[in-house]
Amino acid sequence: MATVAELDIQLVSHSDFDKPTNIDWETEASAGGSLVEFAGRACYETWDKPNPHTATNEAYVRHILDVGHMTVLEHSSATMYLRGVSRSCSHEIMRHRHFSFSQLSQRYVPSDEARVVVPEAVLKDERLTKLFLQSADVAYDAYGELLDGISESFAQEPNAVLRMKQARQAARAVLPNCAETRFVMSGNLRSWRHFIGMRAAEHADPEIRRIAVRSLRLLQQSVPEVFEDFSITTLRDGGEMATSPYVSDI
Amino acid sequence: MATVAELDIQLVSHSDFDKPTNIDWETEASAGGSLVEFAGRACYETWDKPNPHTATNEAYVRHILDVGHMTVLEHSSATMYLRGVSRSCSHEIMRHRHFSFSQLSQRYVPSDEARVVVPEAVLKDERLTKLFLQSADVAYDAYGELLDGISESFAQEPNAVLRMKQARQAARAVLPNCAETRFVMSGNLRSWRHFIGMRAAEHADPEIRRIAVRSLRLLQQSVPEVFEDFSITTLRDGGEMATSPYVSDI
Amino acid sequence: MATVAELDIQLVSHSDFDKPTNIDWETEASAGGSLVEFAGRACYETWDKPNPHTATNEAYVRHILDVGHMTVLEHSSATMYLRGVSRSCSHEIMRHRHFSFSQLSQRYVPSDEARVVVPEAVLKDERLTKLFLQSADVAYDAYGELLDGISESFAQEPNAVLRMKQARQAARAVLPNCAETRFVMSGNLRSWRHFIGMRAAEHADPEIRRIAVRSLRLLQQSVPEVFEDFSITTLRDGGEMATSPYVSDI
Amino acid sequence: MATVAELDIQLVSHSDFDKPTNIDWETEASAGGSLVEFAGRACYETWDKPNPHTATNEAYVRHILDVGHMTVLEHSSATMYLRGVSRSCSHEIMRHRHFSFSQLSQRYVPSDEARVVVPEAVLKDERLTKLFLQSADVAYDAYGELLDGISESFAQEPNAVLRMKQARQAARAVLPNCAETRFVMSGNLRSWRHFIGMRAAEHADPEIRRIAVRSLRLLQQSVPEVFEDFSITTLRDGGEMATSPYVSDI
Repeated sequence: MATVAELDIQLVSHSDFDKPTNIDWETEASAGGSLVEFAGRACYETWDKPNPHTATNEAYVRHILDVGHMTVLEHSSATMYLRGVSRSCSHEIMRHRHFSFSQLSQRYVPSDEARVVVPEAVLKDERLTKLFLQSADVAYDAYGELLDGISESFAQEPNAVLRMKQARQAARAVLPNCAETRFVMSGNLRSWRHFIGMRAAEHADPEIRRIAVRSLRLLQQSVPEVFEDFSITTLRDGGEMATSPYVSDI
Repeated sequence: MATVAELDIQLVSHSDFDKPTNIDWETEASAGGSLVEFAGRACYETWDKPNPHTATNEAYVRHILDVGHMTVLEHSSATMYLRGVSRSCSHEIMRHRHFSFSQLSQRYVPSDEARVVVPEAVLKDERLTKLFLQSADVAYDAYGELLDGISESFAQEPNAVLRMKQARQAARAVLPNCAETRFVMSGNLRSWRHFIGMRAAEHADPEIRRIAVRSLRLLQQSVPEVFEDFSITTLRDGGEMATSPYVSDI
Repeated sequence: MATVAELDIQLVSHSDFDKPTNIDWETEASAGGSLVEFAGRACYETWDKPNPHTATNEAYVRHILDVGHMTVLEHSSATMYLRGVSRSCSHEIMRHRHFSFSQLSQRYVPSDEARVVVPEAVLKDERLTKLFLQSADVAYDAYGELLDGISESFAQEPNAVLRMKQARQAARAVLPNCAETRFVMSGNLRSWRHFIGMRAAEHADPEIRRIAVRSLRLLQQSVPEVFEDFSITTLRDGGEMATSPYVSDI
Repeated sequence: MATVAELDIQLVSHSDFDKPTNIDWETEASAGGSLVEFAGRACYETWDKPNPHTATNEAYVRHILDVGHMTVLEHSSATMYLRGVSRSCSHEIMRHRHFSFSQLSQRYVPSDEARVVVPEAVLKDERLTKLFLQSADVAYDAYGELLDGISESFAQEPNAVLRMKQARQAARAVLPNCAETRFVMSGNLRSWRHFIGMRAAEHADPEIRRIAVRSLRLLQQSVPEVFEDFSITTLRDGGEMATSPYVSDI
């Protein structure tokens, strides 16, 4: 019987910050917040904080968002490792071209275990869940049969590694959208803000919305100054969404 | 019974070329070839073709490739419309971040018809093909059942359009990798050369390799000067590949 | 005496459109407008125009802007050839990373002629213009002297081409920001809209603003449906600016 | 008299690495090297290091370069702060579109001090250096006069900040290419490798080559595994260059 894979997201890397020498400026903030302020001030060399309204890091970053000086957010980056994501959702996520991805290969790695991501709309109904998992089982059974059948038909191929790759890449065609995938996802804070702004919105697909909200929580812990304008709320169906006054409707 | 979708690729747009006024230079080439030569000569204002070895457009473009001045290839673009592609293949293609894509939505458009892309390795064996199509049928049946079941469970949602979207986006989770997708794909000629160089190579996945070779053929007709260094050969298994001396191994 | 270089911008390439076969849909629009509508409809296969409010190309493109479906604007591209631009302005323009540029080289091409771009704020005052051009003359004279002096100091370098390049790349260090440059600039319509939205705004530098407004005029002729939301107005100082309801303040 | 600005480059940020939980794998390497190996292994889940030839981080990263799996280098980033760079060199650097830049503004910040970057080819000759600095002095004097003259002509502008910006943005047109600039530059390790591969090469401009070699030294300290394939050598003229077997000629 197919196993239900749970979403797991971990922050595996973010940018630190070492203030360069010969700069007479200090700030009290996370590494990411400091780096953003440093880059912003470098454009005007306002190291002495001439504007009292932007003297704290929090206020400075808020000012950056107010005036739309978004490029300075690009200097700080963050990397997540995601497990328990469906292949249809990873397809959608990888359309975000400003990120870098390294994804578990279905061509190289056999899908021995049937591990699937079940949509909330299915999970809350026992009958639908059963139907869903049965359908997954049929697909994984067909995958196994195809794997065997195709490797036999490539029996003349002397290279065993190549033969298995050919079998896997053809057999995976019957695997479902809900098959679990895992991947590393890196981007700068401007890209993360854009991803969260689009995908944590109410009308996003529930799975990608859950990922966006979960990523936001990790980033709010790691770089609070750059993500604190987002607020998370609970929808009628129990799901969560997030939005910020700096995210435009479109 | 599931229908086998055939690959169809059409070139729907490419860049034309209007020589600016006050430039004393002529060339005999396709629009794309002319634009590439124009951009290359604009860097040095060699409108009088001082080098006899690069006086033809063909020779000039070859020289661009020789010296690796690849940015000038970026001024000319091409757009393809692809039908009969599997969702697992489109997932792989959309990792090419220098292209722009507009893809048929599984969330918004119902998958009433079971149309699937069958790998060559399966198609050549009647028993495997039957097994493959049966597995697809089971998946599409489950999709239909889930669509009905989920829309019922969202019966309290007054907005019918939203209700159907919620049902479709959850139900599509059981659709297979081999489900047909269709999309528009645009990129400049440098991006197309990179895509073809990587994906028309022998060890690429057979489906993406077929797409890369087919795109190459269309581009060789439309902009011969920029793609004529690629040659297409037939592999032992009947598939095709393409390569060029300007594509590095890695 | 230094010559005043005048701004000249010409559209040298844009995307054409050939409707693919087997699509039962027609539109009456420019190539770029048609391509945008085609890509938008391809996401939902609404070839039969089910929504009467978006049945014309103009209304469809306006709807795209309304809902922020900006990626479909990326399928159509345009290339400009710009002359009479200052090097400080080209520095600013080339920060727009979604464009491709091919620029006249100061390292390879000697700056024999003193051709400079004079800011409006200077041009309107005879005394300042004279001072400006004299300063340019001094710079170009120093350039000539350095060119000679450095080539002499590289006399031991047997390769004459290399010797001259070394002299030019060092001597150009004294050339002014206002030195004329020329370049080819290509981007898709989403990038052009972003460039114009940012650089045709009131507070942009007057030179880049003039370039943005001039580009807009060319694009409004070539692809009216995609740029007609921008309106051009004259500022108190006689300069022009452009804005659109779809350009956010930031 | 103009001051000679010296090149200064400091690494102000790089990616750290926290291994996710539930991964049975250890490595001994810098944060960047570990992150690259982690991302590479995540594609195949080879946590148990089945290949003894790539069991060390150094060997694993070398294998990544060998097979050209360059995307995994994108997960780790580095940020430099550069001072003592000429504006002509920053113009060239900012053509590298995969980096993010925050640069000291000539429009907003007055160039009170004449600080210039003097090319090596000039510095080694006393007479040429004197000529060079005199030319710079003339330019900065003209800048001062223009600044005064233009602000007077904008006397009717009630907003003093705006008046000064208008004066500065016009007056800077006479400043030379050699005027010092400072900027923050961020990119992932793949982008840094590409920048160094192109710009540390023998035929690059000497100033950008010096910057590329200096950046390389900082990265070799910070992420040795990812940059150790580059070797630095001294040229006949005393300058330095760097190259790697993984950098292709073009």
